[in-house]
Amino acid sequence: MKDPKPSSPTAHGLDRRALAFSASIDYDRRLYPQDIAGSIAHARMLGRQGIIDSADAAAIVSGLEEIRAEIERGAFPWRDEYEDIHLNIEVRLRERIGDTAGRLHTARSRNDQVATDVRLFTMESCDAAIQGVRALQRAVLEFAEMEVATVAPGYTHLQPAQPVLFAHHLLAYFEMLDRDGQRFKQARDRADEMPLGSGALAGVPYPIDRESVARELGFTRISRNSIDAVSDRDFLIDLHAAASATMMHLSRLSEEIILWSTEEFSFIRLPEEFATGSSIMPQKRNPDVAELARGRSGRVYGNLMAILTTLKGLPLSYNRDLQEDKEALFATIDILLPTLDVLAAMLPSLRVNRERMEAAASRGYTLATDVADYLVGKGAPFRDAHGIVAELVKFAQSDGRLLTDLTLEEYHRFSPMFGEDVLAIDVRWSIAARDVPGGTAPSRVAVALQAARARLAG
Amino acid sequence: MKDPKPSSPTAHGLDRRALAFSASIDYDRRLYPQDIAGSIAHARMLGRQGIIDSADAAAIVSGLEEIRAEIERGAFPWRDEYEDIHLNIEVRLRERIGDTAGRLHTARSRNDQVATDVRLFTMESCDAAIQGVRALQRAVLEFAEMEVATVAPGYTHLQPAQPVLFAHHLLAYFEMLDRDGQRFKQARDRADEMPLGSGALAGVPYPIDRESVARELGFTRISRNSIDAVSDRDFLIDLHAAASATMMHLSRLSEEIILWSTEEFSFIRLPEEFATGSSIMPQKRNPDVAELARGRSGRVYGNLMAILTTLKGLPLSYNRDLQEDKEALFATIDILLPTLDVLAAMLPSLRVNRERMEAAASRGYTLATDVADYLVGKGAPFRDAHGIVAELVKFAQSDGRLLTDLTLEEYHRFSPMFGEDVLAIDVRWSIAARDVPGGTAPSRVAVALQAARARLAG
Amino acid sequence: MKDPKPSSPTAHGLDRRALAFSASIDYDRRLYPQDIAGSIAHARMLGRQGIIDSADAAAIVSGLEEIRAEIERGAFPWRDEYEDIHLNIEVRLRERIGDTAGRLHTARSRNDQVATDVRLFTMESCDAAIQGVRALQRAVLEFAEMEVATVAPGYTHLQPAQPVLFAHHLLAYFEMLDRDGQRFKQARDRADEMPLGSGALAGVPYPIDRESVARELGFTRISRNSIDAVSDRDFLIDLHAAASATMMHLSRLSEEIILWSTEEFSFIRLPEEFATGSSIMPQKRNPDVAELARGRSGRVYGNLMAILTTLKGLPLSYNRDLQEDKEALFATIDILLPTLDVLAAMLPSLRVNRERMEAAASRGYTLATDVADYLVGKGAPFRDAHGIVAELVKFAQSDGRLLTDLTLEEYHRFSPMFGEDVLAIDVRWSIAARDVPGGTAPSRVAVALQAARARLAG
Amino acid sequence: MKDPKPSSPTAHGLDRRALAFSASIDYDRRLYPQDIAGSIAHARMLGRQGIIDSADAAAIVSGLEEIRAEIERGAFPWRDEYEDIHLNIEVRLRERIGDTAGRLHTARSRNDQVATDVRLFTMESCDAAIQGVRALQRAVLEFAEMEVATVAPGYTHLQPAQPVLFAHHLLAYFEMLDRDGQRFKQARDRADEMPLGSGALAGVPYPIDRESVARELGFTRISRNSIDAVSDRDFLIDLHAAASATMMHLSRLSEEIILWSTEEFSFIRLPEEFATGSSIMPQKRNPDVAELARGRSGRVYGNLMAILTTLKGLPLSYNRDLQEDKEALFATIDILLPTLDVLAAMLPSLRVNRERMEAAASRGYTLATDVADYLVGKGAPFRDAHGIVAELVKFAQSDGRLLTDLTLEEYHRFSPMFGEDVLAIDVRWSIAARDVPGGTAPSRVAVALQAARARLAG
Repeated sequence: MKDPKPSSPTAHGLDRRALAFSASIDYDRRLYPQDIAGSIAHARMLGRQGIIDSADAAAIVSGLEEIRAEIERGAFPWRDEYEDIHLNIEVRLRERIGDTAGRLHTARSRNDQVATDVRLFTMESCDAAIQGVRALQRAVLEFAEMEVATVAPGYTHLQPAQPVLFAHHLLAYFEMLDRDGQRFKQARDRADEMPLGSGALAGVPYPIDRESVARELGFTRISRNSIDAVSDRDFLIDLHAAASATMMHLSRLSEEIILWSTEEFSFIRLPEEFATGSSIMPQKRNPDVAELARGRSGRVYGNLMAILTTLKGLPLSYNRDLQEDKEALFATIDILLPTLDVLAAMLPSLRVNRERMEAAASRGYTLATDVADYLVGKGAPFRDAHGIVAELVKFAQSDGRLLTDLTLEEYHRFSPMFGEDVLAIDVRWSIAARDVPGGTAPSRVAVALQAARARLAG
Repeated sequence: MKDPKPSSPTAHGLDRRALAFSASIDYDRRLYPQDIAGSIAHARMLGRQGIIDSADAAAIVSGLEEIRAEIERGAFPWRDEYEDIHLNIEVRLRERIGDTAGRLHTARSRNDQVATDVRLFTMESCDAAIQGVRALQRAVLEFAEMEVATVAPGYTHLQPAQPVLFAHHLLAYFEMLDRDGQRFKQARDRADEMPLGSGALAGVPYPIDRESVARELGFTRISRNSIDAVSDRDFLIDLHAAASATMMHLSRLSEEIILWSTEEFSFIRLPEEFATGSSIMPQKRNPDVAELARGRSGRVYGNLMAILTTLKGLPLSYNRDLQEDKEALFATIDILLPTLDVLAAMLPSLRVNRERMEAAASRGYTLATDVADYLVGKGAPFRDAHGIVAELVKFAQSDGRLLTDLTLEEYHRFSPMFGEDVLAIDVRWSIAARDVPGGTAPSRVAVALQAARARLAG
Repeated sequence: MKDPKPSSPTAHGLDRRALAFSASIDYDRRLYPQDIAGSIAHARMLGRQGIIDSADAAAIVSGLEEIRAEIERGAFPWRDEYEDIHLNIEVRLRERIGDTAGRLHTARSRNDQVATDVRLFTMESCDAAIQGVRALQRAVLEFAEMEVATVAPGYTHLQPAQPVLFAHHLLAYFEMLDRDGQRFKQARDRADEMPLGSGALAGVPYPIDRESVARELGFTRISRNSIDAVSDRDFLIDLHAAASATMMHLSRLSEEIILWSTEEFSFIRLPEEFATGSSIMPQKRNPDVAELARGRSGRVYGNLMAILTTLKGLPLSYNRDLQEDKEALFATIDILLPTLDVLAAMLPSLRVNRERMEAAASRGYTLATDVADYLVGKGAPFRDAHGIVAELVKFAQSDGRLLTDLTLEEYHRFSPMFGEDVLAIDVRWSIAARDVPGGTAPSRVAVALQAARARLAG
Repeated sequence: MKDPKPSSPTAHGLDRRALAFSASIDYDRRLYPQDIAGSIAHARMLGRQGIIDSADAAAIVSGLEEIRAEIERGAFPWRDEYEDIHLNIEVRLRERIGDTAGRLHTARSRNDQVATDVRLFTMESCDAAIQGVRALQRAVLEFAEMEVATVAPGYTHLQPAQPVLFAHHLLAYFEMLDRDGQRFKQARDRADEMPLGSGALAGVPYPIDRESVARELGFTRISRNSIDAVSDRDFLIDLHAAASATMMHLSRLSEEIILWSTEEFSFIRLPEEFATGSSIMPQKRNPDVAELARGRSGRVYGNLMAILTTLKGLPLSYNRDLQEDKEALFATIDILLPTLDVLAAMLPSLRVNRERMEAAASRGYTLATDVADYLVGKGAPFRDAHGIVAELVKFAQSDGRLLTDLTLEEYHRFSPMFGEDVLAIDVRWSIAARDVPGGTAPSRVAVALQAARARLAG
């Protein structure tokens, strides 16, 4: 035996490289609040049920509370030779309260213990994500309220399509984020099921009271099958999928912020607090925050792929592969929450160049559909109207003019159906005309803003 | 202009390679039921609202119904020069009813039309997935009911850990599938929002009645923001994520079927109808179905990654990139549904070798935890009991014996706490002892089976 | 036995759903040229080595050649009840030449046969990809040669950074594609190893001559380990990784084409042959080809993830999971090759608005670094010079002027080091100054164009 | 302005959340050796070329050397307010040598600097990976040499197929690893191209000597296009793809180690140094190392997906998204190298149960193919022989006997072609018969072992 034997029950004589390879204490120490809360609830229940002496239970609980305080004030002696958070705390508890510490492990296994810890962490992460999503929704909504009268080009294929209210465009993100909030809620619901009491895989041979432990820890329900309970990491797929969808949405928003702040679009201007300079180019005002938000979608997608791959083809029940659930979880949360926060902070600071946006909304023949619809109103089938207006656009283009520059006479060259009223079609006319539920007409957008405000409050 | 101009409005003068590159008719023809249903509902509404003549509306509706019949009897003239399902139907409708066909496109754009089609398809796919999941749950449950008395080794790390009822092990899959069903339901809910009426991106300038169209098509609600409505494919992320989780579960079940049917485990035997021979080895009885189910998880994961990547960084609103939503969707559904079906068909056919399973449950010192728990019952802290039994196991191992082979005298060498009753600990004793909610004790499993049956019925 | 037994040797009594689930004939028929070529080479060798009669070998070869002709003229009776391409051909051969057909399977297994087929297909795919990459490099080069004098804004963070020659920008893609070509070559090299002769997994008990078969089929070498040979799909990871990198590059090029053709940039104009209209907006000129190229990167990434996931954790040797190698392979190739082709067709058709590009290159204070470097030339440390110019830029900005609009006197307000010669700094001066290997100076770009031309020829 | 302004040129007035969001000093400090080496080589060249004073160059070089020493002895004052490794070193250099420090930034930008750092790190990582791969190949080879006479069951579909030498099975991994080594070499070659001298994107306006800097830093060549040079992260795709393929191979090896060490297979026994106990089950001997190696493939796959996603659709040239290249790179390397190491450490410790392996090789009718081939030798077409032996196997199975248990008379019932010599067919006979290049015959395996040894040496 070449390596020194640490005194831990799980690390007896393990090869040093194997120990280093399997240790998780570097990152799983982050689970100490969940781990200690779980142990305290378990110990209290063991005492209540008479499985251990209530004096022992009390000693364990106060020992654990002292350890928590020790960690929080930075005084806990983390030791790498104890491979994980559980063993670090277990060893410390024994140092503090002696052999009684050993009674904490009655009616519990690492397998149900760690699953409980990770679920608690996930539930808290989902709560934080929901808060972050709502804060960003609020920022989007306030931005939209400020820009309620701003006219913007609506794009399809990144080509000007039809004029819209900028507030209407912004509210699209409100909707996306709303779905993100739903997803985190559903991920939280999936995590909200207490595995403790499942033992290693089969349940435990003690008269435990699982429901009371669940209540104390904030779980709504207990797991229904002990083998599933120690094998299941579905809730992490849900979390990473929700985070991936959210990051995707944020990557779209970021892409637009980057586009809008280009010299060529110049629709918005980043304030100095959110623009980054260059080590070499003194004039630069770079949208680094948006670029990083966009780029980090990759890492979150990767974490989703990681957990799916790790789970693929695993036989039941617990396998050590499952240890790989944690680093990706922490990494995703550490990307997601700050990205939501920083975008919520940045949005209110953006300066919109309203004149330029409205001017852009008029270019690119964005009123062509309105003119076609005008002809439909006069009785033309839509497809025919479409053809007539396509010719009109070509005519105007060849001359470098917009449709609004044409005379009635010129209109008549393409169809006799045109009347004086066609000249009234302009950007605001077009916007007002889209007066359907979900449409960009000012009255509809006003209602949407109010409804969004109410949904945030509700 | 080098290429012949097809007469289609969208394909005017498009380069032949560009047309081939952008055509989707090869695969999107599959959306014909949704596309026609959507068009019929739209046309009826246009008529009801007086946006088009009711006679025109009626002509369009009956023209579309004839086209549907034509497709269903294989008589529809699919034409590659019309790039997609929409154009194929549009052109055909014009051939059938003349210029009136053009009126169908009033107050609608491809962007809201295709989003509607894909959502309808997704809702139907989710319904089918939910059915498939339930059918497999039923098969799992029936299998578990058959094996309610079968003792099996419970594994952790693929090493024998503690004996369990085989039915308990199987019910773990019932729980996984239950979560899968939830996910498909949630994906369906996300898809269940009608985009029609959003036009190209901004809404439409006609007095449409979106709610009535939604009702006719089976949508519960209409989209709230027209820009979001044409840009959003979140529901496909939800579908692919649900399918990925399901395929992950099926890969775990498949892995176990493969393991159990190895010569070495020999826990189950595949019937000839579900075992495949070899082109070269006459004796082979290969679990190809399970292998394919396991391997196909990769393709579904890949499709999830595909849609996430495609959506990353897209500016609003519709971009042609979104066309890439369909092939992955079809591929996922075409993997998912048959995998659920074939496993549901195969499960009842498996022959369990109960003797062998129970014998395996006794090997590997699976009762060691029970002996440790016995000592806890006599007053030892769990960690000390764990140490004593580890020594006991080593002693028995060195002799090639099981714990059940030891005499009380031998037990005493390791601790004076052992009494006569330790000799009663055997596999069934161990299973019965795990009498907690979610545990493997027969009474608990019986309750779980009943509850599962009720959940399926409910 | 509930299902009719097909007469096929591998499908004896297989459940109908299981057969449908495991059949691959729908897609693997595409491998017929490789499968037949492999069988012919194998039969010839068997004859040469005296393992089968040479008359039998000749009958088999001519039978297979007839079958190939039959397939090519569309007369082959594809039958779904024979699950794959191999069995379809095998059954057909027996129909044509009788029992002699059975001798073809001497000294060969499906496992080494299918691995050979897929490798041949992969080698051909790599060759086609290399051709496609080179054709696109040629198109890029010719485009760059046309635009050798065009000045463009160079961007970092999508903000104007420094002026460059547009040709220099385009040549960046030449370099990316060059690496792509290397990767396909390396993927081909990895595929170029003949597994035939590995049998099911252990080799075959016949005096075969593997080297001669390899030569006939165009393989450079034979596999060194029969177990690896039937288990290995590494070359597909290589192919999908190469295709993913290529599609990533094409997504970047596409993104730029989309940006450049926006109304706001207006750097290029898409000709009608490569611009798509709208079903509703008559004015549209959408860059659908570039959007699809960008979006399809997702599908290829997904296919890479699929093959990696499928291979994860598979025990040796052949497992049926490996059947899942084919659809992703075909899908990737069917995306990759047309994307390369269509972009090569589109590039020459782009109309560059050179005036607008050059004007954009002057905006955004792109000469600021040059002015800082000017001060360094006068003796200032770079960091100090950077600070002075940052102030200069702010001053000019506040006035709405460019640096080239400032007077010497104004320059002097910020540093006495400025001399008359600072006024000579303009866009072309800046470009010419970057006269280092790899830089944008005209002389360097001229050399780079020549070198690129030579590399294409070489 | 709400936030305190740090004195750094890039962080002037940046919002605190934006600064925290964009800071990378937490992880990129790891690049200090590469960053300092790059700066030293750059400063020396600037001095040699007379771009800065040689005294200044010397001061910079010795300042940087002192900083490196400071870092290495843990005395460097890392400061979070300086966002990255570059700025930390830059500020420290100024503290040490005053304003001369500013001259280091002449003719260089962050964009080419960081690309150089990451490439150097990647080259070193590839070298380490190649070493790790070779060490594991050596361990595999030594294991195979030890087991050169051990007979093992060869599996397809995890069903016994044909007997093989265990050494032959192990050498399959030697081949996989060989390809992995090639991939890391190719990834290194792709990284081996110095971007320094590309400036921000366009080259630099100074008479630099790029070749000499490249030589000093160990690069073989310099980049050919400055825009590509700052935009390119292809070499990271190559690295992650190589690492993914390697981890996939290691996941297969790990899966087999896990299977072989199950109670049911019992082919190998893990020594205590590489087996892990259980917190609750005293008897456990778990293959955690192999499980973790298998599970970690997921994280590496995820990192590949991350970099691909991040790069998708990025316009040229440098975008801040590229900062996301580093964490995934570090994570992949920190998984890959220890996994290679720990498996190389573990392999020699595995105890093979040779008797049990050989016994398993005889079960499962693994000689059936040999009997069919025997009939072919007597003149039967292979397909007919296959059918006869399938019947033979059924007959023996029904009786619970192996083929080697049958009498010649019994053989005759199925075909008159059987002679006395059929009784000689046993496991070793079967192995010896596969005497083809790449086959499992002892002479072939001996040659393969020798060749492998030579390849490792060469």
